[in-house]
Amino acid sequence: MRGNTFGHIFQLSTYGESHGSAIGGIIQGCPSNIKINIEEVKQELNRRRPGQSKIVTQRKEPDDVIFSSGLFEGKTTGFPMGFQIINTNQKSKDYDHLKDNFRPSHADYVYDKKYANRDYRGGGRSSARETANWVVGGAIAKQFLKSTPIKINAFVSSVGHLKLSMPYPELHFDNIEKNPVRCPDLNLATKMEQYIKEIRKQGDTVGGVIQCVVSGVPVGLGEPIFNKLHAELAKAMLTINAAKGFEYGSGFEGTTMKGSQHNDVFNLDGSTKTNHSGGIQGGISTGMDIYFSVAFKPVATIMRNQKSINKEHQETVIQGKGRHDPCVVPRAVPIVESLTALVMADFVLINRTHQENLNRGIQ
Amino acid sequence: MRGNTFGHIFQLSTYGESHGSAIGGIIQGCPSNIKINIEEVKQELNRRRPGQSKIVTQRKEPDDVIFSSGLFEGKTTGFPMGFQIINTNQKSKDYDHLKDNFRPSHADYVYDKKYANRDYRGGGRSSARETANWVVGGAIAKQFLKSTPIKINAFVSSVGHLKLSMPYPELHFDNIEKNPVRCPDLNLATKMEQYIKEIRKQGDTVGGVIQCVVSGVPVGLGEPIFNKLHAELAKAMLTINAAKGFEYGSGFEGTTMKGSQHNDVFNLDGSTKTNHSGGIQGGISTGMDIYFSVAFKPVATIMRNQKSINKEHQETVIQGKGRHDPCVVPRAVPIVESLTALVMADFVLINRTHQENLNRGIQ
Amino acid sequence: MRGNTFGHIFQLSTYGESHGSAIGGIIQGCPSNIKINIEEVKQELNRRRPGQSKIVTQRKEPDDVIFSSGLFEGKTTGFPMGFQIINTNQKSKDYDHLKDNFRPSHADYVYDKKYANRDYRGGGRSSARETANWVVGGAIAKQFLKSTPIKINAFVSSVGHLKLSMPYPELHFDNIEKNPVRCPDLNLATKMEQYIKEIRKQGDTVGGVIQCVVSGVPVGLGEPIFNKLHAELAKAMLTINAAKGFEYGSGFEGTTMKGSQHNDVFNLDGSTKTNHSGGIQGGISTGMDIYFSVAFKPVATIMRNQKSINKEHQETVIQGKGRHDPCVVPRAVPIVESLTALVMADFVLINRTHQENLNRGIQ
Amino acid sequence: MRGNTFGHIFQLSTYGESHGSAIGGIIQGCPSNIKINIEEVKQELNRRRPGQSKIVTQRKEPDDVIFSSGLFEGKTTGFPMGFQIINTNQKSKDYDHLKDNFRPSHADYVYDKKYANRDYRGGGRSSARETANWVVGGAIAKQFLKSTPIKINAFVSSVGHLKLSMPYPELHFDNIEKNPVRCPDLNLATKMEQYIKEIRKQGDTVGGVIQCVVSGVPVGLGEPIFNKLHAELAKAMLTINAAKGFEYGSGFEGTTMKGSQHNDVFNLDGSTKTNHSGGIQGGISTGMDIYFSVAFKPVATIMRNQKSINKEHQETVIQGKGRHDPCVVPRAVPIVESLTALVMADFVLINRTHQENLNRGIQ
Repeated sequence: MRGNTFGHIFQLSTYGESHGSAIGGIIQGCPSNIKINIEEVKQELNRRRPGQSKIVTQRKEPDDVIFSSGLFEGKTTGFPMGFQIINTNQKSKDYDHLKDNFRPSHADYVYDKKYANRDYRGGGRSSARETANWVVGGAIAKQFLKSTPIKINAFVSSVGHLKLSMPYPELHFDNIEKNPVRCPDLNLATKMEQYIKEIRKQGDTVGGVIQCVVSGVPVGLGEPIFNKLHAELAKAMLTINAAKGFEYGSGFEGTTMKGSQHNDVFNLDGSTKTNHSGGIQGGISTGMDIYFSVAFKPVATIMRNQKSINKEHQETVIQGKGRHDPCVVPRAVPIVESLTALVMADFVLINRTHQENLNRGIQ
Repeated sequence: MRGNTFGHIFQLSTYGESHGSAIGGIIQGCPSNIKINIEEVKQELNRRRPGQSKIVTQRKEPDDVIFSSGLFEGKTTGFPMGFQIINTNQKSKDYDHLKDNFRPSHADYVYDKKYANRDYRGGGRSSARETANWVVGGAIAKQFLKSTPIKINAFVSSVGHLKLSMPYPELHFDNIEKNPVRCPDLNLATKMEQYIKEIRKQGDTVGGVIQCVVSGVPVGLGEPIFNKLHAELAKAMLTINAAKGFEYGSGFEGTTMKGSQHNDVFNLDGSTKTNHSGGIQGGISTGMDIYFSVAFKPVATIMRNQKSINKEHQETVIQGKGRHDPCVVPRAVPIVESLTALVMADFVLINRTHQENLNRGIQ
Repeated sequence: MRGNTFGHIFQLSTYGESHGSAIGGIIQGCPSNIKINIEEVKQELNRRRPGQSKIVTQRKEPDDVIFSSGLFEGKTTGFPMGFQIINTNQKSKDYDHLKDNFRPSHADYVYDKKYANRDYRGGGRSSARETANWVVGGAIAKQFLKSTPIKINAFVSSVGHLKLSMPYPELHFDNIEKNPVRCPDLNLATKMEQYIKEIRKQGDTVGGVIQCVVSGVPVGLGEPIFNKLHAELAKAMLTINAAKGFEYGSGFEGTTMKGSQHNDVFNLDGSTKTNHSGGIQGGISTGMDIYFSVAFKPVATIMRNQKSINKEHQETVIQGKGRHDPCVVPRAVPIVESLTALVMADFVLINRTHQENLNRGIQ
Repeated sequence: MRGNTFGHIFQLSTYGESHGSAIGGIIQGCPSNIKINIEEVKQELNRRRPGQSKIVTQRKEPDDVIFSSGLFEGKTTGFPMGFQIINTNQKSKDYDHLKDNFRPSHADYVYDKKYANRDYRGGGRSSARETANWVVGGAIAKQFLKSTPIKINAFVSSVGHLKLSMPYPELHFDNIEKNPVRCPDLNLATKMEQYIKEIRKQGDTVGGVIQCVVSGVPVGLGEPIFNKLHAELAKAMLTINAAKGFEYGSGFEGTTMKGSQHNDVFNLDGSTKTNHSGGIQGGISTGMDIYFSVAFKPVATIMRNQKSINKEHQETVIQGKGRHDPCVVPRAVPIVESLTALVMADFVLINRTHQENLNRGIQ
């Protein structure tokens, strides 16, 4: 109800503000006896970590996660995993200028109106610091998904007007982690990197798009009507800070097509010759790759002074200072993957409650 | 869990297949003492009804809704409203050819694999007939929302390549119901109508986009992190049959902008000079208009024969017959509005559980 | 949230007032491909039906249930089962005297204060007519449970001061349906029947206790901490109109025992020599019989005039008229079983989401 | 679903095992701007703390709670409060003898069968150490409830066969905290204390009953049908370790009464002359005191050797050692209050979503 819990069976509940003593959460619903490698969780956190390259924020956050429960002898017990990440780099004084002022296109104003007791330091609960919690949850979900054939790969498909021109099956996913932008086309990645640096020099920011491909999905995941697989993915993706849009399969482009072009013709094995459907029909996975894109606006915090208003509704100036991302998409790639992993893990478990699936060997 | 319930407090649960004896549902969570006009519910159903114009399916479905509970002396009692719409025009024999065959880009195949007891008649539970239930729920939500300043207007913004060029504030919403396409630009509407008729003659279908504007929204609706207002809207919209994408505010276009352009500068009263944010920050309404777009693929049922496979995974041909929509968007307009109304009503009620809001007069 | 939905995965949502046109509900979460015999549903309704014997209310309610969805060729489809029971015997005029008056120990007063638009006819939503919906849901759950070894038997263990003296393993459950009281001790049943008739002659009512035994339960059902098996059973039982208490295993009597007496010593096969635990440890089934008791107060509607107050908080007299049960427990036996079946079906499905169980063959 | 979350709007989610590094949880749904005194939280924890008197376990657990989020300048922000209690006194070696053995009437056996990766140290997740989390959640709920007239008082009403003979209105609640048993009748308390000491000397344990009185409850809290106020209280109480039964109002005793005796006659102000109903009708508070009793079995851990079985289903002996409670009820009093506070806070918030209540000034 209050929006701090994600998922139905495989659930992540989180807490924490940017400048509190710690953030953290509870992962529940992961079956027992799943091997958990904490190092892999930390590797995922490193992919999200500030300071990882020159095109992201230079803040230093060690992001050391500590699990307090739910694990025994290296495996899950079936009980909730409580975890915490200590906030070590809280320079609250950096934010004194935000105490009474509202930054444009940030949540400051609405938080203040809704709650009237706003922790203004670094955005408080609205800070993207929260996404570290999601990466922890996602990393556990990914380890659970190792017991299935499901694989998740996200990558940057556009930065500003620089867009990938190839469809995803022609891309080499191995290239994704080989460049700081996380774009699988290394030529384009270099251009994107240059562009982001240029934008940063201007004290400005720019938006972009992340595409995600989920392969190895068995037929039958997803629940019809109100819990469609793609609807849950859309909700998950629009949870991410700065996300403005979601499309899967043919997406917005598909609206210009005719049915005779768009329909995916079956092969005899049930796969389809094309995949405009994006791996989902009627909310349920078809066995083909699921692919979708997420639009991200330019980060609202820019390194320029901006006119704004304060709590008394008077004019004020927000100074452009601090350490921020000129473009959010490189660091958002592991976040997209994490939420996708949580959604997929959840639907794998929900699917087990269907009698017929069990009898027919679908898990 | 099984995807037949929508909403958190203001909830709609539904049942029914295309060719069962009836569809229906339960609306719960509507506060007591709200005046309900059943005629208005029927008017909304008429907006969704097949056969309403020459560019939609010519099936006849009277869609007479009967409420069994939850109303007393013309007002809600606070108890669940059970309702039912009898299926009067079930020609099950029309669907014998689908018993063992899977239509391309329909849910037939995945339903068969997931449940192994598929009601193949007219798509069964996956049929868009279900959306009549949503319109009933939405019509009740709309009547509840009359106690707030919230107004919801959806309209067709593109059909195939024919797109509205004006931003929504320049449009006359009065025009929406004056043409069968439900496009507020009457010139464009005529072109769209012609185009749809042409497509129908070809036995083909075409996609389109619906835009929705929610005005009069008080500051503070929506819950942060995992129940963001736009995330719930996205989930709702991707629930609609044939929906492939969602964007709000600047959307996908916004990914090409710079932060210095995109940021919405405040006026002294807390409103903003631009509204790239789309009326939502951090998942919470800003008081500015909420606007979003939903992409719809071309309808999968075309009036042409198509190669496909059957249950034995052998080749078969699906005949193009029956009465179907050449373009889904005109009839989807009231569906978009209905689900939006359900989301907004839900957040209005959730917001009441915040102490501070109550004290400060925000309901 | 609004209390009209029962269960987590195997869910029953209901609607309907005593004197509306119909009551009904939606059963969702039942796996697909389960054979459903509608006759068995009707038999269960007959066990709850008014007028079935001389010691229950002589109202006539045919209680004919109609399913509209979720069934195909005699088996579940995995989709929601919408059902309805038409109210045929609504004599609303019988209730005109209740329009402005509050009956003692009924929900009239609190409903009026909470909702301010009270359907006073026959108690409206608070009427035990609602329990017919539960019996329909429970009858479906019972049919699902046939795929497991779980068996549920409830019976009357006391009426007023007349109490069963034997522990349940010494009773013959075959006797339960052989007498109108539903007490398995036929001698005691005769005394109870006499006593209830006497009470009825006095225009009075009397309370009683129902015991329920669930056998064949595999080890491992139930979720620890906040969804313990016995906690969900307690909640279910206290949902029943007139229920005032719940105990399982040694119950209130066990509070006087010492640990050395109370502890259940294991046999080598994991069963226990005694079963003070009542078949549940730590919220999870042990494999031993689950047994519990439910206390019912005397029915509040008596055939005597009673002083009371009206809406204007003035003195009034409630006349003792109508057709009511002198003792609720005989007809509550199938209701106890129905809710128990719903709880057990739910936990069977929840349990499937535990990895280890699946691997080890526990369903 | 997995049983680690309590409540609907005012929610507590918990994690932690007896001998992990920490236990903790997340409290969400508390409205913003509520003053929180951490000292009061610690005082509640002290009431539950081991070693507080000679009749409870002599283990030392400092139970120092640390909040990481959700508070700003001494008041709630409306965001989740993450908290943690470090486990400082984990002597895991004490539990090596339990690694492969199942204690009688403990959760060892069922946990092992259900999860197959059991943290056996001190009972792991099934340990009553978890109840410290509940007391933290309850302490926050109590502070929220200060904005309402609701007051909660629990006390010990029986230990073994020693029972309070007076009804609660004749008791002095001030006496509760004046004796280590927490019985308001000081004479009886002395006898109970002596009896518990005697039981402890025998290396045995004994059960008891706790009664709880909730006063100052406005008319209208609770949701009908499946979320009745007393049904949620029953579920909450049966969540507590060792709880075997629940009754409210006239309870099991009321089953022997006649309707003419049991019915509560109204006073003109809507209060009633008697209160057999226990302050609840139809699941909704009447404005009269809510009172209920909870039965607790004797603690299963006794200081005697007991025959049992091990993982290989061979005979073994469980040694009676460690530091345990001879009687659970004195320390369970704050636990009963805490869960009651969580239930009441939740219903206060749920009630705000009813239109009519708001208009009529009921919160």
